[in-house]
This record gives sequence, C-alpha cells and structure tokens, in this order.
Amino acid sequence: MKWVVKIGGSLFPHHAKKLLKNLLGEDVIIITGGGEFANKIRKYDHELGFSDTANHEAAILSMDIMGILLADLVKGAETTHTIKRAKKIKKDGKIPVLLPSRILHYLDPLKHSWKVTSDSIAFYISKLINAKLLIATDVDGIYTTDPTKREAKLINEITAKRLLTFGETSVDEELPKLLLKYKSDCYIANGKHPQRILSIIKSTETTYTRIRGD
Amino acid sequence: MKWVVKIGGSLFPHHAKKLLKNLLGEDVIIITGGGEFANKIRKYDHELGFSDTANHEAAILSMDIMGILLADLVKGAETTHTIKRAKKIKKDGKIPVLLPSRILHYLDPLKHSWKVTSDSIAFYISKLINAKLLIATDVDGIYTTDPTKREAKLINEITAKRLLTFGETSVDEELPKLLLKYKSDCYIANGKHPQRILSIIKSTETTYTRIRGD
Repeated sequence: MKWVVKIGGSLFPHHAKKLLKNLLGEDVIIITGGGEFANKIRKYDHELGFSDTANHEAAILSMDIMGILLADLVKGAETTHTIKRAKKIKKDGKIPVLLPSRILHYLDPLKHSWKVTSDSIAFYISKLINAKLLIATDVDGIYTTDPTKREAKLINEITAKRLLTFGETSVDEELPKLLLKYKSDCYIANGKHPQRILSIIKSTETTYTRIRGD
Repeated sequence: MKWVVKIGGSLFPHHAKKLLKNLLGEDVIIITGGGEFANKIRKYDHELGFSDTANHEAAILSMDIMGILLADLVKGAETTHTIKRAKKIKKDGKIPVLLPSRILHYLDPLKHSWKVTSDSIAFYISKLINAKLLIATDVDGIYTTDPTKREAKLINEITAKRLLTFGETSVDEELPKLLLKYKSDCYIANGKHPQRILSIIKSTETTYTRIRGD
C-alpha cells in the first residue's frame, strides 16, 4: 500500500463514507480517528482524571470502533487487525481499514498522552509499511493562525520544525516531532472534498498543506 | 473465580467505582457494560443502519473501553484479556477486570444482535470459567411491570421461562434463553448498594431478583 489515509473522526459519518467510497480502487490503507468516542473519553478524563495509559488504550479502541462502523457503511471496505490481511484485502480489489489496537498493543511505540492521537498513530503505521501519510480532516489544511479568524491563510507547505512553534493546530502536537525524527513528510487536506484527496494520491495540483520533516 | 460480577454501564462512573472498591478481596472477576459508548453506537445505528456484526463488534469494544476506564479509577483493579492472567491478578490480591473483545473474537459464541448485550456476554464468560453470574444494575432487580409505574413490585425469584414473556426488562432479551439452555441461574441486584452485591456473594439475605434457568 502506497498511502495511509487517515480519515478524521470529524468527517464521520457522511463525509467519511463519501470519501471512503471515492478511494475504492486506490492503493491505500485507511485508518480512522476516534471521533465522538474519543471525545467522550476526553470528557470523562476531564471529570475523573485517568492515567495516561488508560486514556491512550481507550482512545485507540475508539479508533477501532470508528473503523468498524465506517467500513460497514461502504461495500468493498473491510476491516483488519493485521498488515498481512490488509494486503490480501487490497489484492482482492477491496479497501482495507486497519483497526490499530492490536498492532499498538504489541509494539507500544508511542508516548501515552493526549498529545499523541490518531494523527501520530497513522504516521507510525505509515512508517511500519513504508507508505506516505495523508490526513483527511474537516479543514483545508494548516492555517497561519486560528482558521476562524479573518486574516487566517492556508499554508501550502511548512516545515515540521516551524509547525512546532504553532501550538494547537488541526493535527496533534506529537506529529511534527515524529516527522522530524523520521525525516518524513505528510499531507493535510480537506476530506469533505474527496477529489482533493485523490489529487494528492495522483500527484496532481490541489489544495492541501504539506508538512516537511527534512 | 467463583463469581462474574457484571457492572452495568449506567453505574459508571461513581457508583461503579464505589462498587468495584467494595469488591476488592472477593473471589470475583469483573465485566463492564458498554455504557455511553454502546449508547452512542446504538444512536449511530438508528441513523445509519449498520450490519448486526458491525454493531456487535463495536459494542464489545465499548465494553473493553469501559473496563479500562473503570479499572483505572480503582487502585487494586487490573484489566486483562485472558482468563489465565485474571487468575494471576486474583492470586496477587487484586481484582481482575476482563476485557472481553479478544475472547469473543476467537470464540464468537453469541448471536450478533442488539438482543445480545453485555448481560449475555457476562453470562457466557461465567459459563466458560464455571462461575456464578451477578448483574449489578441501577435498579433493584426485575419488576412485575415497568418499574416507574406505581403498581410495580420487585420479584425475588422468577423462572427464565416466565421472564421470556415479559418483553423488555433490565436485562437483555437473550439472557433468559441462555439461562434455560444452560440450566443456569443468575442474580440481578442494585449496584448503587454495594452491600447488596456483597450479601449475594456471601449468601446472606438481601434485595435482588434471582432468575432460575431450571
């Protein structure tokens, strides 16, 4: 698989379904964000104060749940816990949706913190299989400032090092650090426009932010 | 382990935490309901219409999430995916919280339907380890009619066969069928009163409903 496409939980259900349908036939493996399930865990955490490990493990299971639900909405999508099976699903002309909990349970490669979310997890999976990472979210990419502000401008390309100075953005705080560590790039694009996601995969011009880790 | 105690999702967080604390040192293994995570899946299902299998798998993962979060709130509680490890946790003087997703993934013994919830799953686990089942919920047991009605009376003992004629109750619709099939009993009691749960375990007088499968 050439691309890991992470479909953000904020796109679920309708935009996520439409995007996944559009990706049928492409050389991709899908990972989903934890969506409202992860939000619920965060909310409980604010109230009750769980350990970092409990939050991490529960949030990863919420990615599994979203993967199961999203794959179920699209004929031709199929869930799996393994890369081996994902390759077989791909070979059979279907689109694999990876449920990451078991791989992460065995490897446990990432910090246990809310700073590590499905963005960093999707990046880690992309490194495991030597694929590129594309994060489909509900905004056009990374902006110069809070995107609700009038002066906010979309950034076409930014270094991970520079992004680290931005504080909170549409990707998690750990991702730029991982991009630097692995000297890797990734793309952030608006999943509400499946054509943009397809354009990036096909290396044609479109709207996105590329984060460079070199 | 002599008892499987299923802690209903409606007791989470505060009543569930208190109950679990009270069960420290008892010969029990804990299984949690899916709580608000399972409710969210149901809600999405009403809107989007998932397959029975997707609902089943996602709902079981919501039990894992609740197990992780609940165990994290109580010092001396520890999660596990296996019976083997649960025995070790018990032996070390701690209380095992079983995350059922992997056992169910391997064995897949139950119907994929919303009629099978954590009650039936807890019963199945209790059979696997030859333990008794106690379901701790947010009402005192099974009532003669809708418990919000004035004329509703708590039933101390009822046959599973009779319960099958009741329609919707505080336990899932599959449970009485399983109790009949396996000629087994189970107890339903109010988890807001940990003393009642302890009394059942210690075979002393208290308030509950016993469902008889003979």
